[in-house]
Amino acid sequence: MSPTDPARLTADLIRCPSVTPEEGGALELLEQILSAAGFDCARADRGGISNLFARWGAKGHARTFGFNGHTDVVPVGDEAAWTVDPFGAEEKDGILYGRGATDMKSGVAAFAAAAIDFVHTTPPDGAVILTITGDEEGDALDGTTALLDYMQEQGEAMSVCLVGEPTCPNTMGEMIKIGRRGSLSAWFTVTGKQGHSAYPHRANNPLSAMARLMDRLASHELDQGTEHFDASTLAVVTIDTGNPATNVIPAQSRATVNIRFNDAHSGASLTEWLRAEADKVEAEFGTTIDMQVKISGESFITPPGALSDLVSTAVAAETGVTPELSTTGGTSDARFVKSHCPVVEFGLVGKTMHQVDENVEIAQIHQLKAIYSRILKDYFA
Amino acid sequence: MSPTDPARLTADLIRCPSVTPEEGGALELLEQILSAAGFDCARADRGGISNLFARWGAKGHARTFGFNGHTDVVPVGDEAAWTVDPFGAEEKDGILYGRGATDMKSGVAAFAAAAIDFVHTTPPDGAVILTITGDEEGDALDGTTALLDYMQEQGEAMSVCLVGEPTCPNTMGEMIKIGRRGSLSAWFTVTGKQGHSAYPHRANNPLSAMARLMDRLASHELDQGTEHFDASTLAVVTIDTGNPATNVIPAQSRATVNIRFNDAHSGASLTEWLRAEADKVEAEFGTTIDMQVKISGESFITPPGALSDLVSTAVAAETGVTPELSTTGGTSDARFVKSHCPVVEFGLVGKTMHQVDENVEIAQIHQLKAIYSRILKDYFA
Repeated sequence: MSPTDPARLTADLIRCPSVTPEEGGALELLEQILSAAGFDCARADRGGISNLFARWGAKGHARTFGFNGHTDVVPVGDEAAWTVDPFGAEEKDGILYGRGATDMKSGVAAFAAAAIDFVHTTPPDGAVILTITGDEEGDALDGTTALLDYMQEQGEAMSVCLVGEPTCPNTMGEMIKIGRRGSLSAWFTVTGKQGHSAYPHRANNPLSAMARLMDRLASHELDQGTEHFDASTLAVVTIDTGNPATNVIPAQSRATVNIRFNDAHSGASLTEWLRAEADKVEAEFGTTIDMQVKISGESFITPPGALSDLVSTAVAAETGVTPELSTTGGTSDARFVKSHCPVVEFGLVGKTMHQVDENVEIAQIHQLKAIYSRILKDYFA
Repeated sequence: MSPTDPARLTADLIRCPSVTPEEGGALELLEQILSAAGFDCARADRGGISNLFARWGAKGHARTFGFNGHTDVVPVGDEAAWTVDPFGAEEKDGILYGRGATDMKSGVAAFAAAAIDFVHTTPPDGAVILTITGDEEGDALDGTTALLDYMQEQGEAMSVCLVGEPTCPNTMGEMIKIGRRGSLSAWFTVTGKQGHSAYPHRANNPLSAMARLMDRLASHELDQGTEHFDASTLAVVTIDTGNPATNVIPAQSRATVNIRFNDAHSGASLTEWLRAEADKVEAEFGTTIDMQVKISGESFITPPGALSDLVSTAVAAETGVTPELSTTGGTSDARFVKSHCPVVEFGLVGKTMHQVDENVEIAQIHQLKAIYSRILKDYFA
């Protein structure tokens, strides 16, 4: 059997128009290839979303290496702005173009190709599991969580997991993600008493309370960073009132804050802190302050150790770059996997993800396959 | 000659539809009556606005008592909500209804009637001047200022002046106004640098600076009041940003504040203070803060003395109520007259001014004429 070409597989996947929640043929293609290569495949579809589970080797083996990724892509956006067919997988000067070229059909192709070739050339004493979802870019309710639920029901388990998302800001190999900060948004409505600007003592200006509360929140140091995390941050993202009259004190004003937090906090502890600050200002100003909170994700971390060493070593060997272990960036499906097993993320340079003319260097797809192959070899060595 | 009936004159004036800037026949009627009564009348019209100047007695007399008022009225508003014809001057149970019934055709009628009868029954060694404008409710650029300009050109002068605006909040006789606070509005635009909520250190959030600035301004004590004035006040009337995205730090935010200030400040001193506070916050946060200021009026005062004593004594004699000397409330044409001569304001209960079914007690119009008559008698005694 000749080696599996990850660039060709990436191109084949780009030609599947799998904009969330459409499967677009991408998972069917992977299922066909993986089944042919001796993987036990199953679909863990849920809520109209397609998800593919594939295992090579014995179920429940104590040494099971997992990969996670997604084949769904974000919409094309302004199609007229593209210089290529977003689903054409056009190749020019060593660059492959198309929606999902970096995020993350190349990542899925690279780990699928690495896994197929690895189990055929050097069958390990262990198992390799691929979990590939069709809902990472959407609300992610029936994606990786459905796969993890399926695995629990079926008694399937990964010992460790590598998510193949693009993780490198600029240069191939420079960053592994070992965790993420959490994210919380809070919406405040301050209600006072309307009145005439000339007689503020007869009114209760909600903006005095609002300015005080937002200044306190914005200037509070949540922490100075923790062992593996940057400092938590809070940003006031909007304050709105909509009062055009200079002689009127408004009755109400609204504001929103967003917090990105590390492992010194939880969504619950921050909610409690925000409410306490609002209570203080309520008491000082006699206004009422309503607060609505949404916790988009808690922070999580797989502390540096065996798994990150394994990935770092392979990255350094293949690229000559020693990757940084980072907890920066937005959310990913690692936030679901972390409650299943140790998880880190490593993939391509993410510069063009979600953009017009999204593209990937073909050489980097091959390099990524080589890194994943080395990780499998070292893991089972 | 029988006494001039101020209630009948009020009704006649109400029937003139003199919504600013329309003269509506009101000043023509007054000119006719005053000319017939021996007053020298002249029109000081300017910029499409009609204004009436009337003097009885010798020009330039050292003892010249002045009255000031306006015949223009605010629009009817929701005409369907009126239970009477706004320009019908309907009378029911001792109440006279119509636009301008209190603000201030009754006041003009009362001082015109008082002046006519006074100069006929007890011709004084002095002069009486009436300045009546058709532009007090509008932008007031060509109203009382045009009359004062006319007087300066003609060598006409008032020794003291009484503005006949409604000044009593609830009970006839309870309040004389001897000055007013000034008013200033300032519009702030804070500009930072847009960015992602997850990376606030790469952005510069204008809302952090905005919250600090507005909190400082709103919590600053401008003063604790002065001899004749309440404390100056500052109200933040709006803060607006219009950013719907919780993951975006906006580039810009806007706010407006309104200051009502006493004689401890001037528009210029407050502008300087606001700019200094903005400069401090600019330096602390590295944002730029643009500030636009509009001074609607400076504070002014005619300190308690001969003129307010004269008016107080007459009010107390006719009503049994000792009036408070106040500097509260919105603006009036006294702000123009104060640079010409000592000025105070006294008039009816202003409760229904600018409202639907504006009305006045007929007995109070007669009472007001009696007060104005007594003031003239005492002034020239």
